[in-house]
Amino acid sequence: MQDFGDTAAATPLRIGVAGLGNVGATLVRILQKDAAELTKKLGRQIVVTAVAARSRSRDRGIDISGLDWFDDPVALAKSDGIDLFVELIGGEDGPAFAAVKAALEMGRPVVTANKALLAKHGVTLARMAEESGAQLGFEAAVAGGIPVIKTLREGLGSARIAKVYGIMNGTCNYILTRMGNEEISFAECLKDAQALGYAEADPTFDVEGFDTAHKLSILATLCFGYEIAPDKIHVEGISKITQHDIKVAADLGYKIKLLGIAQRSDDGIEQRVHPTFVPKGSAIAGVDGVMNAVALETDHVHELLLAGPGAGGPPTAASVMSDILDIARGTRVPPLGVPSEELLPFRQAPMRAHEGGYYIRLNAKDVPGALAAIATRMGERSISIDSVIQRSDLKAKDSTDDGVSTRTVVMITQKTLEADVRAALAQIRADGFIVGEPQLIRIELL
Amino acid sequence: MQDFGDTAAATPLRIGVAGLGNVGATLVRILQKDAAELTKKLGRQIVVTAVAARSRSRDRGIDISGLDWFDDPVALAKSDGIDLFVELIGGEDGPAFAAVKAALEMGRPVVTANKALLAKHGVTLARMAEESGAQLGFEAAVAGGIPVIKTLREGLGSARIAKVYGIMNGTCNYILTRMGNEEISFAECLKDAQALGYAEADPTFDVEGFDTAHKLSILATLCFGYEIAPDKIHVEGISKITQHDIKVAADLGYKIKLLGIAQRSDDGIEQRVHPTFVPKGSAIAGVDGVMNAVALETDHVHELLLAGPGAGGPPTAASVMSDILDIARGTRVPPLGVPSEELLPFRQAPMRAHEGGYYIRLNAKDVPGALAAIATRMGERSISIDSVIQRSDLKAKDSTDDGVSTRTVVMITQKTLEADVRAALAQIRADGFIVGEPQLIRIELL
Repeated sequence: MQDFGDTAAATPLRIGVAGLGNVGATLVRILQKDAAELTKKLGRQIVVTAVAARSRSRDRGIDISGLDWFDDPVALAKSDGIDLFVELIGGEDGPAFAAVKAALEMGRPVVTANKALLAKHGVTLARMAEESGAQLGFEAAVAGGIPVIKTLREGLGSARIAKVYGIMNGTCNYILTRMGNEEISFAECLKDAQALGYAEADPTFDVEGFDTAHKLSILATLCFGYEIAPDKIHVEGISKITQHDIKVAADLGYKIKLLGIAQRSDDGIEQRVHPTFVPKGSAIAGVDGVMNAVALETDHVHELLLAGPGAGGPPTAASVMSDILDIARGTRVPPLGVPSEELLPFRQAPMRAHEGGYYIRLNAKDVPGALAAIATRMGERSISIDSVIQRSDLKAKDSTDDGVSTRTVVMITQKTLEADVRAALAQIRADGFIVGEPQLIRIELL
Repeated sequence: MQDFGDTAAATPLRIGVAGLGNVGATLVRILQKDAAELTKKLGRQIVVTAVAARSRSRDRGIDISGLDWFDDPVALAKSDGIDLFVELIGGEDGPAFAAVKAALEMGRPVVTANKALLAKHGVTLARMAEESGAQLGFEAAVAGGIPVIKTLREGLGSARIAKVYGIMNGTCNYILTRMGNEEISFAECLKDAQALGYAEADPTFDVEGFDTAHKLSILATLCFGYEIAPDKIHVEGISKITQHDIKVAADLGYKIKLLGIAQRSDDGIEQRVHPTFVPKGSAIAGVDGVMNAVALETDHVHELLLAGPGAGGPPTAASVMSDILDIARGTRVPPLGVPSEELLPFRQAPMRAHEGGYYIRLNAKDVPGALAAIATRMGERSISIDSVIQRSDLKAKDSTDDGVSTRTVVMITQKTLEADVRAALAQIRADGFIVGEPQLIRIELL
């Protein structure tokens, strides 16, 4: 019978796991529990032989007594007792980076779930892996339990991707879903999310879109073959989304989702993370709560949606396992889809060149001529307005400082250049007919 | 630099394609057009060198003048001029089976899109491939452009799947979607589907669920590790679905989809294909028109949905290409996920042991006591009724032969054993209070 391992199929594959949080402990448990089944599947044994973590004595619900213990993950990565290094420490630099480098330098395969590390050092690490002949797997780094990395690297043949977008942060999706179902504010939802463990004590990284941006930068490289550019992303979070916005969206047949979007344009690659109006009937609109989803559009009108759990111990550990199994089988694929020397320098399409529909909410002063002045400024920039909404129940409660009352005006534009929308709004602000900052939410017709 | 092909990475991989229909012609076009890009990605050239089809002269929009021509696909499969054989002929036996066998017997890798062949001979072919050391890829055989085979074989780590279900026939989904959006009958929708090329002249294979059953049998084997059992599936098609059913479903918050479902139960594996009530808000309910979707549930409440095009030249060719690329890279994986000698004999859970909710539509005679008699029979089997609906606009137009008018009664049951529902309906039929066959549609709370 054919064996499905590499040349050393008869010998067991020895795994070292650095980081024993939720995912790490789950992984060790799976490797111990499913050992017999895995051996049958692979024709080769997979065993955890060593671990590294901060506290040796902490109860994690797993038995590590028979395993080699390392205080230093770098020492584990270099240890003679392992064949594959799993990095579940986290952090873009520090011990995670040092340990992954140490393993790859000696040609030892690495599996990591560390999106921050990949976003910052992915190209460097891919190059090291290719030079030393080691494999580098990171399925769990983006959209935890969804096999999106494998699909992009191996599953699409030579289909050319035109656009990738997704819901990649469970905290944001949970908050927006609850705001859509109940009449509660962003702040209240955030508090609940924190109580439920869906949001960190300092939620900035999640709710302001930076976590999504990291993941998007990795996906964009796999899709378009450019170097990873996590700093060249237009990022807006969800903290300014109000019940006004949610309700108007619902009335117009939309839901608001925080999307990460990357697409080819004439000017380069657009990378953007922002709250987005998506049509209620679209597949991505149905992805609610802590679920994640990634969608792809290819040149051949070939749309693909992958939806599933974005985090959690078992799903994330399952993704780490799938990388381990690929390595055990001897699968070889360039970490970033194409050999790193073929990656193109990133060319960022300016956000001002983005074209799309816009939802604009303004607090217009309740004085004669205000609406006319606003409409005139939009017209000067050739912005076509699809609809204007002034619902009494959405009326701004506040009055301006000088005692002028305001009313909420919502405009939906047709396809428009972002530069024109920004210029018109700057002019409207300068005219003095509005109070506060306009709310601007992009519309995607997915 | 590391190379990502097999040991013969420097030599080109020569492809022979048998069958030049829509998918075959698209594949040849892609291989010719993207040659340079593929070489860069793989570090190895991929070239079509030979083709086989019925008519040599037919215009397919591709240039085959430089390729070796074979009238006989078996001769192509065995030819010295190819390293990999692609079978796009179709049919469960005949030349497709003969050619695939011929290639595998000599250790030559095969890629096929042929679900009927796989459903009938998959285990035999997997065994042959394992014995000769050849790879066998069939990503395109199920849900054309969706990478579901790769995900099941490689992408889930060791996660144990509890249930797999999906919309796997575009013809049926198109018809049900249109019936849901417009007030037209099954027959009218089918005619339109035929005119648009979404349905065959003889639509039986699609609309009666057999195509879905083939695909389901392949997925079930990959999910549960049993032998493929396409004949051990409870199959019902969509031809008896009426606007009554569609409307009541909508009123109750459901859509009707033709699902293929396989799940573990205490009695073995349930494999079933039937029209299904799915909650409107569920992800699978959003998969409309000719789109397909496959969903997985693992033991860890780890749900995954993959949605995309189920057919069409470019998506299907892209899936064929992904298999070709895996083989070019030297990826080795057992065709059916586990080595074929590890496959368990299939153990079918009887449909009568299925438990779920049911939609039951009856034409009850409009005579005193009819409804009471029906309700009594349900009660005798301990079937709890969630709701009874008698809408005047859904009143049956027909009268019975003996001049008795009827009224449509719809009942929704709570979770019930299928054996009990069937027994109650048999009794109700015997009592003589209903006319015609009851309509029975299963409800899944996905």
